Amino acid sequence: MGTTAARQPVPARRADAERNIAAILEAGTRLLSDDPGASVADIAKAAGVGRVTLYGHFPSREALVDAVLDHAVGMADAVLEDDTLDTAPAPEAMTRLLRSSWEILNRHRRLFLAADRVLPTERIREHHSRPLRRVERLISRGQDDGDFRTDLPLEWLVTTFFAIIHSAAQEREAGRLSPEEVEPVLTRTMLSLLTSAQAS
Amino acid sequence: MGTTAARQPVPARRADAERNIAAILEAGTRLLSDDPGASVADIAKAAGVGRVTLYGHFPSREALVDAVLDHAVGMADAVLEDDTLDTAPAPEAMTRLLRSSWEILNRHRRLFLAADRVLPTERIREHHSRPLRRVERLISRGQDDGDFRTDLPLEWLVTTFFAIIHSAAQEREAGRLSPEEVEPVLTRTMLSLLTSAQAS
Repeated sequence: MGTTAARQPVPARRADAERNIAAILEAGTRLLSDDPGASVADIAKAAGVGRVTLYGHFPSREALVDAVLDHAVGMADAVLEDDTLDTAPAPEAMTRLLRSSWEILNRHRRLFLAADRVLPTERIREHHSRPLRRVERLISRGQDDGDFRTDLPLEWLVTTFFAIIHSAAQEREAGRLSPEEVEPVLTRTMLSLLTSAQAS
Repeated sequence: MGTTAARQPVPARRADAERNIAAILEAGTRLLSDDPGASVADIAKAAGVGRVTLYGHFPSREALVDAVLDHAVGMADAVLEDDTLDTAPAPEAMTRLLRSSWEILNRHRRLFLAADRVLPTERIREHHSRPLRRVERLISRGQDDGDFRTDLPLEWLVTTFFAIIHSAAQEREAGRLSPEEVEPVLTRTMLSLLTSAQAS
């Protein structure tokens, strides 16, 4: 965000820039969560800044969507804070984490689709590293407690969580899963993946 | 690919165009499967056509990658043709289908990553509709035979197949799964998802 790197930063100027960036990220989160095709011009307008100002901070749609996603995931991660994740039996804690993750993702699923159009999956996953660390910690504890399988790598199980919940967002948006179906389908899918004592 | 819609097509001219398109798709598949960042200029050169000719058929990188993916999946689908998919016990047939699908996807995983950078997941999935119909037919038969679960929607189980195998390609490319690990991990993951008789 260092737009004043070459000059001595003037505090008032920097405060303006920070206020503009905050307004752009807030408006971007709001508009893209409603319509993944929302234009950069619409986001500038909703943020109350000129397009030149917006492009000064985010030189491309890709850069803007990347920053908006980072902002939204940061807020989402705070919502996932829940002490019982570390204390409740792991399958129960997983059900709860899936529910709260899905609630947030569902609200922002169109923003995720906007990101999916311009960013590689690997980059989208990087933005989720903080919430995914919660998932990893919980699966790891479930493995230690003997509730979750240990015949698949921990990191792979975390990846399946990411893949499954984001697939659900896409299926929901495409109308292939109904609003009521998603949560039970997600829970059943992840728990059978995590707890299966498979024969072969 | 009717580039001559406005004029009467001249047969020799059309044959040239078809030859060029075939060469571009072949070169695109080859180069992008080696390096997802291969440039349009490199692909034109490898195809033995000028950039103007290439852009005449594929006006953007996105359009080119889209066509190359379609071409590659079409070829891959033919390789998946296997009569035993309809006759072997469903779990055995699924193991076989996963193995052959992974072999092909692994060979072209960088092309898939190139596609993932410029195309929405929904579009990539559309390109896979033919191979995914094989997956759907097999899962449906497994459900009829009592080998696969029926407490999750068929379409969702097909989606998880798509999500899981493409996640494996990403994990493999990112070095988070070793070459030897992928096949057993995929098989164990999909079979426990499909056969789990989950308690909750």
